[in-house]
Amino acid sequence: MMLSKVLTRLDASFGESLERLFELLRHKSISMDSAFREDCRKTADWLTEDLKTIGFDVSCRDTIGHPVVVAHHDGPNADALHVLFYGHYDVQPVDPLALWEDDPFDPKIKELNGHKVISARGASDDKGQMMTFIEALRAYKQETGQLPVGVTLLLEGEEESGSPSLYPFLEAHADELKADYALVCDTSMWHRNTPSISVGLRGLLGEEVIVNAASRDLHSGYYGGAAANPIHILVRILADLHDKNGRVTILGFYEGVEETPEQILSAWKTLGLGAGGFLRSVGLSLPAGEKGRSLFELVWARPTAEVNGISGGYEGDGFKTVIAAKASAKVSFRLVHKQDPLKIREAFRAFVRSRIPADCTVEFHDHGASPAIQLPFDSPLIACAKTALLKEWPNPAVLVAMGGSIPVVGHFQSLLGMECLLVGFALDDDCIHSPNEKYDVNSFHKGQRSWARILAALSSFSEPGK
Amino acid sequence: MMLSKVLTRLDASFGESLERLFELLRHKSISMDSAFREDCRKTADWLTEDLKTIGFDVSCRDTIGHPVVVAHHDGPNADALHVLFYGHYDVQPVDPLALWEDDPFDPKIKELNGHKVISARGASDDKGQMMTFIEALRAYKQETGQLPVGVTLLLEGEEESGSPSLYPFLEAHADELKADYALVCDTSMWHRNTPSISVGLRGLLGEEVIVNAASRDLHSGYYGGAAANPIHILVRILADLHDKNGRVTILGFYEGVEETPEQILSAWKTLGLGAGGFLRSVGLSLPAGEKGRSLFELVWARPTAEVNGISGGYEGDGFKTVIAAKASAKVSFRLVHKQDPLKIREAFRAFVRSRIPADCTVEFHDHGASPAIQLPFDSPLIACAKTALLKEWPNPAVLVAMGGSIPVVGHFQSLLGMECLLVGFALDDDCIHSPNEKYDVNSFHKGQRSWARILAALSSFSEPGK
Repeated sequence: MMLSKVLTRLDASFGESLERLFELLRHKSISMDSAFREDCRKTADWLTEDLKTIGFDVSCRDTIGHPVVVAHHDGPNADALHVLFYGHYDVQPVDPLALWEDDPFDPKIKELNGHKVISARGASDDKGQMMTFIEALRAYKQETGQLPVGVTLLLEGEEESGSPSLYPFLEAHADELKADYALVCDTSMWHRNTPSISVGLRGLLGEEVIVNAASRDLHSGYYGGAAANPIHILVRILADLHDKNGRVTILGFYEGVEETPEQILSAWKTLGLGAGGFLRSVGLSLPAGEKGRSLFELVWARPTAEVNGISGGYEGDGFKTVIAAKASAKVSFRLVHKQDPLKIREAFRAFVRSRIPADCTVEFHDHGASPAIQLPFDSPLIACAKTALLKEWPNPAVLVAMGGSIPVVGHFQSLLGMECLLVGFALDDDCIHSPNEKYDVNSFHKGQRSWARILAALSSFSEPGK
Repeated sequence: MMLSKVLTRLDASFGESLERLFELLRHKSISMDSAFREDCRKTADWLTEDLKTIGFDVSCRDTIGHPVVVAHHDGPNADALHVLFYGHYDVQPVDPLALWEDDPFDPKIKELNGHKVISARGASDDKGQMMTFIEALRAYKQETGQLPVGVTLLLEGEEESGSPSLYPFLEAHADELKADYALVCDTSMWHRNTPSISVGLRGLLGEEVIVNAASRDLHSGYYGGAAANPIHILVRILADLHDKNGRVTILGFYEGVEETPEQILSAWKTLGLGAGGFLRSVGLSLPAGEKGRSLFELVWARPTAEVNGISGGYEGDGFKTVIAAKASAKVSFRLVHKQDPLKIREAFRAFVRSRIPADCTVEFHDHGASPAIQLPFDSPLIACAKTALLKEWPNPAVLVAMGGSIPVVGHFQSLLGMECLLVGFALDDDCIHSPNEKYDVNSFHKGQRSWARILAALSSFSEPGK
């Protein structure tokens, strides 16, 4: 009864919620580029002010990086469940800017393949998704004067740059942040009409490698054939990362990797979208990576090593016959199950060092390390959410694993001992991390309604044995 | 007698010659960057006007690229020898600009390791070198009212970008440009007190490779492990270019490569500068490249494959977990003896294509192709120049090969049938193609005097049998 009023209010005030999202999207909160430091701060301030209007006890906390917004609101009574919701207000850089059809920080409603979409950097990842939850809270508060459960919001500004400040922050504020469950809205739907709940998330290790050779750039005519070329050294190292079967060759890399149970692999195979479809949508047709594994196993349950960027020598127009003084690459590893990110970092660095000639040097920069997480397929929390979602969407939610990494979820599990519910309304064609990011208007609307339903379900939820 | 007056005049007017060079150096004639197109044109115009003041019949000729300046001046009589002098007025790009101590286009006299140097982009390569010859001509004309030999000047503006217009230009104007000998001032001295004459020049083949995979940049979490990563494809191709012994693996690459005669290798070994010294000056100590070859053989007489630039994915600050849609590299090959650049281009492209997965594509861009040249060690022209240089410098000139490429020299040989004299006054620490390029004041001064002496020697030179 109460829920239906809240849903009606969400429908009636949808236009206003869009305006608020647009305001948020206009902030250029690119966390990894120090030129946008002040923009990140202003984004956090905006969220702080917005949450105050809902009645949250909210503070914007400084870190050595970007601020964390923490907000608390009691539940309807002392016995009420308390949840911690996590979101991030930072966004990816926008380069190459030339490929955007519109200004990435001037949000617009557009029509795309017959669907209305919100076009902007961060529309999907994660500002739009984050606001689905906040709008559900706002509607509850406005309609009922209270929230159905106690809520703590944790909104960080460094997710897109590996969340360096977050782990220390969680450690320092563990008592304050601990709740019954954690909720995250940073994942995708299975299909436009089929929500998903994520039960597995790959971990992430980010490394930057800089190979230094000569003390200055050299003329390849004078020195070519005798002077070490750091690009050659680097490409050999990177080429060595995989064997002919696509397996990563770093010593001990597969330690802690488990084989996925046959019944889960079978379930994934029935999901109806073959390798061709998944890849065809981005112009590819042949699965790369490890041989002998099915597509969803590759992206959800197998670890990877990917070179995300490489740079060295002359990269401008035309040609320059130079032997560079240095070359660099950014390499990330997606981790699964019990792989230890720190052990793999050391093994990777040893792998690289052993391939550096004695008269050259190598530097490493650490870009974050987080283990994988695996949630129980048979969790009552997940069952509760699944039931709530079924009332909103045409098709039942499917339980999937995710190839991406949300480092904080691992920390919630290991540091705060919380089970985590991962529900999101992004679509695979949202172009997150790419030019022309968008979020479907339908995702934003039904996402709000979905959270209202889940919150209602959680208000009467009691887990057996808890 | 006449020569000594010319030398005295060169000494007396050295300050004015420096001012002229500074004017020339202020022109930003970066040929490979289209933003400097107009600067290249103005540089050619400046040279045109300057040569008119010497009395040359000069014209600035348009090409589809940058203009070529062609200037003619008769010799003292109808029987006089006629020489073609080649130089280039274009310069390399200046990036990384942050590493320059001074504005690269605001020339200055500075003190460096106890020597006065001219600091600017192009001070050495090739504006300063080119002007040593022009200043010698000017002094001759001013002092004697004529030139000791007939002279044609061919000053191009595309040397640093592979001279795409030059070959067609030479073909179209072969009759006009044909002379008894070609002279080039674009090479280095052996040591500060020891000039060199180059008898071998490696050829150059420039190729740009672009590997295209997905239709857009992908999130490495969603797609990593299943989608083709063009950086992986590219680094494997580039790593495959050399075997474990540093030999290039492209099919037929060594066709036409000759072993250097033992007595020449021995002479090079006595040159007194071991691999350590040559490499130590740039912070290295171990010869890279082909195993079992001596240093000077590697840089003068062996072919190479060098990656001059590589680019792909996220290259900015921080980290971006992206799988790039494309990755690219610039690769150059130094060629020796009878290696055929066009055959090697085709073999390289086949090598690359055979390593591209069926759902990815590759593009190539041609950045010039020129064969190597090898001059006779026992040429009378070289002996004549050697005698002239001995009067100017403390030590006799050594006959060396050069690792760099001056494509036009090959064309002079093959297209115009001219023997080519390569004398230059650059020093190995001139930082050509690098930040803080310089040319020693001593090189500029004694370079002018050297050409005056060589011109005087040529005026009474008659080659046996010619």
